[in-house]
Amino acid sequence: MSFNSRLSNRISQSQSHLCVGLDIAPENFPDADIGLSDLQDHCQKVITATSEFAAAYKPNLAFFERWGSEGIRWLEDILQLIPSDAIIIGDGKRGDIGNTANQYAKSMFDHFGFDAVTVNPFMGRDAVKPFLSNADKGAFILCRTSNASASDLQSEAVIQKTIDLAIEVNENDNVGLVVGATAPDELKSIREKSPGVPFLIPGVGAQGGDLESSLKTGTRNGPALINVSRGISFAGDLSEKAIHDAAENYVNQMRKIVNES
Amino acid sequence: MSFNSRLSNRISQSQSHLCVGLDIAPENFPDADIGLSDLQDHCQKVITATSEFAAAYKPNLAFFERWGSEGIRWLEDILQLIPSDAIIIGDGKRGDIGNTANQYAKSMFDHFGFDAVTVNPFMGRDAVKPFLSNADKGAFILCRTSNASASDLQSEAVIQKTIDLAIEVNENDNVGLVVGATAPDELKSIREKSPGVPFLIPGVGAQGGDLESSLKTGTRNGPALINVSRGISFAGDLSEKAIHDAAENYVNQMRKIVNES
Repeated sequence: MSFNSRLSNRISQSQSHLCVGLDIAPENFPDADIGLSDLQDHCQKVITATSEFAAAYKPNLAFFERWGSEGIRWLEDILQLIPSDAIIIGDGKRGDIGNTANQYAKSMFDHFGFDAVTVNPFMGRDAVKPFLSNADKGAFILCRTSNASASDLQSEAVIQKTIDLAIEVNENDNVGLVVGATAPDELKSIREKSPGVPFLIPGVGAQGGDLESSLKTGTRNGPALINVSRGISFAGDLSEKAIHDAAENYVNQMRKIVNES
Repeated sequence: MSFNSRLSNRISQSQSHLCVGLDIAPENFPDADIGLSDLQDHCQKVITATSEFAAAYKPNLAFFERWGSEGIRWLEDILQLIPSDAIIIGDGKRGDIGNTANQYAKSMFDHFGFDAVTVNPFMGRDAVKPFLSNADKGAFILCRTSNASASDLQSEAVIQKTIDLAIEVNENDNVGLVVGATAPDELKSIREKSPGVPFLIPGVGAQGGDLESSLKTGTRNGPALINVSRGISFAGDLSEKAIHDAAENYVNQMRKIVNES
């Protein structure tokens, strides 16, 4: 089964569009003295508290790399804790010449076993294709990111070229796009131009994107995952209950929005 | 001392523009059965054989990540073997929103201790600035890459915006640009538009870029490093002598070119 079909099935079966981002940093804790083992405990708590709600998980590699080999060992460990039916997206935004992109693909798929990755298209199709040779595994190509300075380089022309590139390389039905919730006009326009292509939508929650409009637009003619990181992992008093309730609340809102539209 | 000054000094003192790329993959060996310990031995051999010639080293993170936490441990180990006067560039081409870019900066500078990194500008200035707050540490921003599909997204307009962005964020004299030797016209144009900004020039050797023209152009009004990876690390019969002689040959050619111009 192609990655895109598997993703659609997972969204239907879980009745959830929620992707839980795993960006666990000491800076997000109120306590001053947070070490790697505290983060490991918290990450495990987040996975346990959200497993009944998450269609997908998205570990952000930066937050593991920060700790060097010990952090990567932590990533290897938590990948064993995520329920096997969830989609796991390795968020590394890698992008390099073909020879190097091949090594990154080996890392993300063969070593870590991610179901999908995020990829940066700045270097063109050479940088993307090595992630697409296995139809079971997918790649979400950055198209319009959620951050304030996205428009520095992501002009209308660059976004159009990225859509064209994504459609061209989608021979195995395993290409998606990353489109931020913080840019509703671009989200609408990109959604119209890429029917059927799955969207990974960051920017809801801490970054201020609107859940209702981004989910309605994102699911209009293709599957969509809404990523929430800090808004769940660091909800309330950081207890398992607070994290569970935040995830449940997001999923309930999403179900209501999807049922109404 | 700012990173850019330190780089210029290092190039003068070593009388070398050579950056030795460390991209050590089993696919580059003639033998079928190459494991991590063989790669570790070979990497150590490359560093020993080239240390009298290299102004800089550039470990490519993909080749370490491929092996997960063990590969990252290998990277941590080899960083201890590189002579302390050489510039060490962590080639990861990271690029993400500010919050995540901060974690990558902690990884690359605080954990691994790289002197500089390569950074992808697709997400705009938010993705670049976290790498620039410490003047001692530098970032080479991808501007025009060496691969065949670079022009898919790197149009004249995108290249110009990247140059403008780089000059704008160069408040601490620690910003450089990555410009491929395989695009001589763009190299010339970008060099004219960014006086004083250091260039990291990949694409000589296995990728087919011309050493003489790229070194002459690259050093016209600013410092330049020429990166060679496979052309040195996998020279001849892969012996220490073959690697040593390849590095010596590159540096002798470079000295001749620079002295003539």
